[in-house]
Amino acid sequence: MPFSFKVNKTSDKARAGLLCTDHGEVRTPVFMPVGTQAAVKAATPENLENIGAQIILANTYHLVLRPGSDLIENLGGLHAFMSWNKPILTDSGGFQVLSLSDLRKITDEGITFRSHIDGSLYLFTPESAVEDQAKLGGDIIMSFDYCTGYPCDYDEAERAVDLTTRWAKRGIDVFGPRFERNGYERVLFGIVQGSTYPDLRDKSLNELLDIGFPGYAIGGLSVGEEHPQTWDLAEQVADRLPADRPRYLMGMGTPLDLVDGVSRGIDMFDCVMPTRNARNGTVFTKTGKLVLKNAVHTSDSAPIDEGCGCYTCRNFSRAYLRHLFQAGEMLGPTLATYHSLYYYCDLMRQIRHVIARDDFRKWREEFNTVYSTGADNNG
Amino acid sequence: MPFSFKVNKTSDKARAGLLCTDHGEVRTPVFMPVGTQAAVKAATPENLENIGAQIILANTYHLVLRPGSDLIENLGGLHAFMSWNKPILTDSGGFQVLSLSDLRKITDEGITFRSHIDGSLYLFTPESAVEDQAKLGGDIIMSFDYCTGYPCDYDEAERAVDLTTRWAKRGIDVFGPRFERNGYERVLFGIVQGSTYPDLRDKSLNELLDIGFPGYAIGGLSVGEEHPQTWDLAEQVADRLPADRPRYLMGMGTPLDLVDGVSRGIDMFDCVMPTRNARNGTVFTKTGKLVLKNAVHTSDSAPIDEGCGCYTCRNFSRAYLRHLFQAGEMLGPTLATYHSLYYYCDLMRQIRHVIARDDFRKWREEFNTVYSTGADNNG
Repeated sequence: MPFSFKVNKTSDKARAGLLCTDHGEVRTPVFMPVGTQAAVKAATPENLENIGAQIILANTYHLVLRPGSDLIENLGGLHAFMSWNKPILTDSGGFQVLSLSDLRKITDEGITFRSHIDGSLYLFTPESAVEDQAKLGGDIIMSFDYCTGYPCDYDEAERAVDLTTRWAKRGIDVFGPRFERNGYERVLFGIVQGSTYPDLRDKSLNELLDIGFPGYAIGGLSVGEEHPQTWDLAEQVADRLPADRPRYLMGMGTPLDLVDGVSRGIDMFDCVMPTRNARNGTVFTKTGKLVLKNAVHTSDSAPIDEGCGCYTCRNFSRAYLRHLFQAGEMLGPTLATYHSLYYYCDLMRQIRHVIARDDFRKWREEFNTVYSTGADNNG
Repeated sequence: MPFSFKVNKTSDKARAGLLCTDHGEVRTPVFMPVGTQAAVKAATPENLENIGAQIILANTYHLVLRPGSDLIENLGGLHAFMSWNKPILTDSGGFQVLSLSDLRKITDEGITFRSHIDGSLYLFTPESAVEDQAKLGGDIIMSFDYCTGYPCDYDEAERAVDLTTRWAKRGIDVFGPRFERNGYERVLFGIVQGSTYPDLRDKSLNELLDIGFPGYAIGGLSVGEEHPQTWDLAEQVADRLPADRPRYLMGMGTPLDLVDGVSRGIDMFDCVMPTRNARNGTVFTKTGKLVLKNAVHTSDSAPIDEGCGCYTCRNFSRAYLRHLFQAGEMLGPTLATYHSLYYYCDLMRQIRHVIARDDFRKWREEFNTVYSTGADNNG
């Protein structure tokens, strides 16, 4: 079905909605597992379906470098390539060009850089970034942006906003906000930048609204600034985004971040945290993080999270999982990843449920009481 | 149900039978995936069930060193610990003590060695090896043996046979050939040693037959000797083993080895080859090995093995799998392992089928025509 987004229910600022694409529906708020290199690390597509993942993210920077966007298009696009038939969102490449590559040169034309894999030279332009994403085959694709780090002085932040706006316009001028390719629709989202400067965030937002996008992302946050500032800025932008368009807070975050983001009207999230932490043996539970390698779990017959319905918790003890990590067994990361992605997706299911009942505020208070961010329950 | 074994059909020397344990039935000939450290590397128990694995093997040496047999018994034994409810076979530890540990000292009492993990000192005796296996919880357990390497001079081989016989007797004197523990039955197999000396193989076999075991294994083969010699010795032993007891050829091997072993009346096999090779990107197909990393697969949309019904072949191309290995994604080993274990289990299914139809010889000729052992199809 063609792209659409509808907010069905609000609870304070929290929104429960439905986003439709040609690859199916996504109930929001939603967490998108990250499949950087056309694979969610340590999870099969079958695992992701069983976990309840509705949409996944893939990284344009990584995939253009290896195996290449032409190769993926020739093999039928990302959905066929990685055997994932639900919606996919690809990022613009902007964030990773600036965080991973070498010898970057930023001009009006775009960003020239060297691959972190083999040092070869690339130029990403606003047109090429959208074209690459069209080849990769994401249902939702992102405008090429200039994502600043932290700290960032005002002049650079202003330049980033100006370039991001001009690049967003160039992308939409060539492709339009929605276009069909290889038999299904692609939808372009704009990314609000502006670093930690409220006036630049407003400027960026207003300029993108003038262009007009089917959805908007908030970029360049949680890159080093203090957490209260992150939320002040995110809320400022979210409050001014059009109510009828999906809002995507890029690259965040912890379970608490997801709850805090939803409370500010965010609809879409992505983060490598559940998968990356799981591979190191740290998993999420209703009471906070749990470090599976800790000696306290040596003979613990309890599952990771009592009451969790995931494959890992239904079948394996903390003692077994600790053993797998101690022994360097790949099954440790696999089972831990399964749990933590299930935890994230289940958290969002609960959130959608309490928004539908207009009960989000009360639920959030209970969540904050039970969920500890301290180190004392690092098991 | 209590342990039993029955040969239902033979086709030349090949046998199709049914082995029963308190954890269920095993149709033979059977390949047992290796779960060294209480985990089949890169495979969940759910994967193994879907693949059609009927019984798995775990390694006593590894598990006694880490996490320890007491801990596993306290957590309900291997079946509960690793969430595998079908039969389990544990080896005696003898092979790995001699191949992995340091500072070994072999006496009448047993083998003293240092752990390859932390250098701590252990003594395995014929009694402790069975006791450890009883704690671990395998349905089928192995007598403690002295497994010689290659080359091995006659005197050492003779001493190994003598010790293996005396140790086998000591194990059975304490535990009996079958015993119940923690609510289900354990069955003890003897291991025929004798290195490459036909007379010592006979001596070992005759001494074990005098003791009397519910099943027999052929150990100490494929440790460096030439392949024709391996099969001469295996066949010599298999021909003299009692027809009504299961025959287990330890640690072998390639798909061709499985077919060759079945043709000599072997019922049970184990080998790390399918899982170890898969983690390195080499998988098995009906025409031989396939090296997924090879550049020829860069844009190959074909599955690993046309006509294979496994999850990997139903969903992923060689190009995608090559990409996963190139990118260092854990999903590569996972999907390759899935395929190769499925291939091994499916090969045994086919073999059981053609034995039941008394058509093994003809099937084997066809298999040998199609399956190439050469390097030319390492595609």
